[in-house]
Amino acid sequence: MTFTLARRAERMNPSVIREILKITERPGIISLAGGLPSPDTFPVQALRDASEKVLRDQPGEALQYAASEGFGPLCDWVVGELAAHGLHVTSDQVLITTGSQQGLDLVGKLLIDSGSRVAVESPTYLGALQAFNPYEPEFSAVACDADGPLPERLGDVHNARQDPTQRARFLYLTPNFQNPSGRCMSEARRAALTRAVQTLGLPLVEDNPYGELWFDAPPPAPLAARWGDGVIYLGSFSKVLAPGLRLGYVVAPKPLMPKLLQAKQASDLHTPGYNQRIVYEVIRNGFLRDHVPQIRALYKARRDAMQSALLRHMPPGCHWQLPSGGMFFWIELPEGVDATALLPQAVTLGMAYVPGFAFFATQPRLNTLRLSFVTVSQALIEQGVEMLARALRETAADEVVSRRT
Amino acid sequence: MTFTLARRAERMNPSVIREILKITERPGIISLAGGLPSPDTFPVQALRDASEKVLRDQPGEALQYAASEGFGPLCDWVVGELAAHGLHVTSDQVLITTGSQQGLDLVGKLLIDSGSRVAVESPTYLGALQAFNPYEPEFSAVACDADGPLPERLGDVHNARQDPTQRARFLYLTPNFQNPSGRCMSEARRAALTRAVQTLGLPLVEDNPYGELWFDAPPPAPLAARWGDGVIYLGSFSKVLAPGLRLGYVVAPKPLMPKLLQAKQASDLHTPGYNQRIVYEVIRNGFLRDHVPQIRALYKARRDAMQSALLRHMPPGCHWQLPSGGMFFWIELPEGVDATALLPQAVTLGMAYVPGFAFFATQPRLNTLRLSFVTVSQALIEQGVEMLARALRETAADEVVSRRT
Repeated sequence: MTFTLARRAERMNPSVIREILKITERPGIISLAGGLPSPDTFPVQALRDASEKVLRDQPGEALQYAASEGFGPLCDWVVGELAAHGLHVTSDQVLITTGSQQGLDLVGKLLIDSGSRVAVESPTYLGALQAFNPYEPEFSAVACDADGPLPERLGDVHNARQDPTQRARFLYLTPNFQNPSGRCMSEARRAALTRAVQTLGLPLVEDNPYGELWFDAPPPAPLAARWGDGVIYLGSFSKVLAPGLRLGYVVAPKPLMPKLLQAKQASDLHTPGYNQRIVYEVIRNGFLRDHVPQIRALYKARRDAMQSALLRHMPPGCHWQLPSGGMFFWIELPEGVDATALLPQAVTLGMAYVPGFAFFATQPRLNTLRLSFVTVSQALIEQGVEMLARALRETAADEVVSRRT
Repeated sequence: MTFTLARRAERMNPSVIREILKITERPGIISLAGGLPSPDTFPVQALRDASEKVLRDQPGEALQYAASEGFGPLCDWVVGELAAHGLHVTSDQVLITTGSQQGLDLVGKLLIDSGSRVAVESPTYLGALQAFNPYEPEFSAVACDADGPLPERLGDVHNARQDPTQRARFLYLTPNFQNPSGRCMSEARRAALTRAVQTLGLPLVEDNPYGELWFDAPPPAPLAARWGDGVIYLGSFSKVLAPGLRLGYVVAPKPLMPKLLQAKQASDLHTPGYNQRIVYEVIRNGFLRDHVPQIRALYKARRDAMQSALLRHMPPGCHWQLPSGGMFFWIELPEGVDATALLPQAVTLGMAYVPGFAFFATQPRLNTLRLSFVTVSQALIEQGVEMLARALRETAADEVVSRRT
């Protein structure tokens, strides 16, 4: 029996990262590939206490079908948290999602028709490309510099001279410590970009899983705080508590909420009420005020270890910026070196990374790769980077040899 | 700022049931509307113990990102459970989903193009219509009798004379204690239907959330056990443990698994590993063997209470079958009585139900309604049914008056 697949299935592909993660689960491989938060940061005792309390005090409610919107007190908490970051919304603008990835899927379901143009950064978050792809968009990459998308280049993907059906449905971007580039948009760029998209009438989908993971100073206010009507904002509990609970949220302009909610109902009825209540119990009294600084300190030390290892080991011709938060270094190898082709050699030497090509919606730059500094210890970071550098030197040597013969 | 919505958003609608549930959350309303399992059946102590154990013994794994396929031992458990029901599959055919609703969404994402024909029962499960609708199918209802879809009528929706693009992508059905009709397909009908769909080359999507909730005898083997290659099978932990954990599973023919998995990754990366491990911990040593019979006994007593109340109170001209399992009675009111129009009066008297029209993909029968017997006590069932009968008699009287004037 042959099932007839929907056309969109052609657009689905195995996640490069998940395929690499499978390889790197082999014991002994130092993986700088996955964006896995350090398990040392999971607040296990607080979650045990919260779970015990929820199942003691409100088991019937926690274990029953629940509202698609999310657990009311948790939605209220999100409102308060965002207000502290300058983003003022009401509780009925918050939808709790089954991880932030579901937020991306719902955005795609709601806003992308087959053939719709969707603007993204270059590079951009791989998981967003995967979430949007089944809805069959045409991606357009906005030219970027080290500070993010260039406002003066937005007209390339969305302008008044275009057929309206060719204008981008939205620009997807991660202003804070972007995955994979690590960059954080400056205040000036945020202001200029917001003015530009408002002028063009180009809505934004602002993804902010990493904003709390700053090392020196908090990032500037989100773009949603500057243009409430035109921005869908996504947040996550995965990086400040634990990803295995699968809790994120979408904050959207009010006119979008009814359809967003219906898309959520159609997708999984509601996010597990048990998980929502546990997380609310953990965070309700300011737990994150003490907890998140501990994560920052741990990750900052690991970032410093990686920077130091990179400076010590990487051969000339490699370039990177020091990330001021988040989880990733983005490395540019010398022109002509293909990071995908290099990977097997790196794995043979004992380490793994993610080749950069997967993070480009169009025109991949093959000489790029992503390193995560949050999952493994400083000692292993040092070893892993040393192995990467060795793989790179050996490849470069091979290339020289092959050119001579 | 106006967002441009995808065309599919027009196909999304507020869930009738969820809208009614909001009304019925008013204190004092006896709701026979929602299909909410009785909280008395939630195994709270077992879940507390399991949660404690998981967070003590494997917190790092339970709280980290995890495989999209699901927690391996839980997939293995599903394999064993299905084998006991005559359905023999391997672990790599099992995908753990965020509730069974997500299984329906993934089926739609994978198999439905805009304009694809999808065959359903009449009536059919409302949540499946909601899950499929955003993928813009054309629904065709297969004629049914009290034993389910009529094999000889399948040719109406899928036949060799049709343009191949007009043939149904699949037939969606719930053979065991269907929501809303309560019917359970006989062995003879399952055999005949399987032969018919095999001959036609019409794949099945078999939904089985209620199969364990039998009162007299277990239902016959699933259709998937008769045609492994042509059936996608969906199961759920919501009715035997608790819905608030949001755990279900999809079992599919092997050729479908890669794309199904990619659809899952795109939708929410993976189902919460914490929840999967807790449930596995609860059920791994045969817990359900003692637990499910308790649920059956409770629900059977409530079914009997509802049957008795219906026989005592309902006016002539109303028809229903006694369900032999599951959660619902399906009531046919006298011809000409609109169950939707009757609802406000029933609510005024103090009870609520779900009007039947929402369960029809095409040609709704307005004189039908669904009653759940599992959520409230026998005493409240008696009162609720009495109120429904009173609303019905008062309406009938009004109609007579209006016809006279």
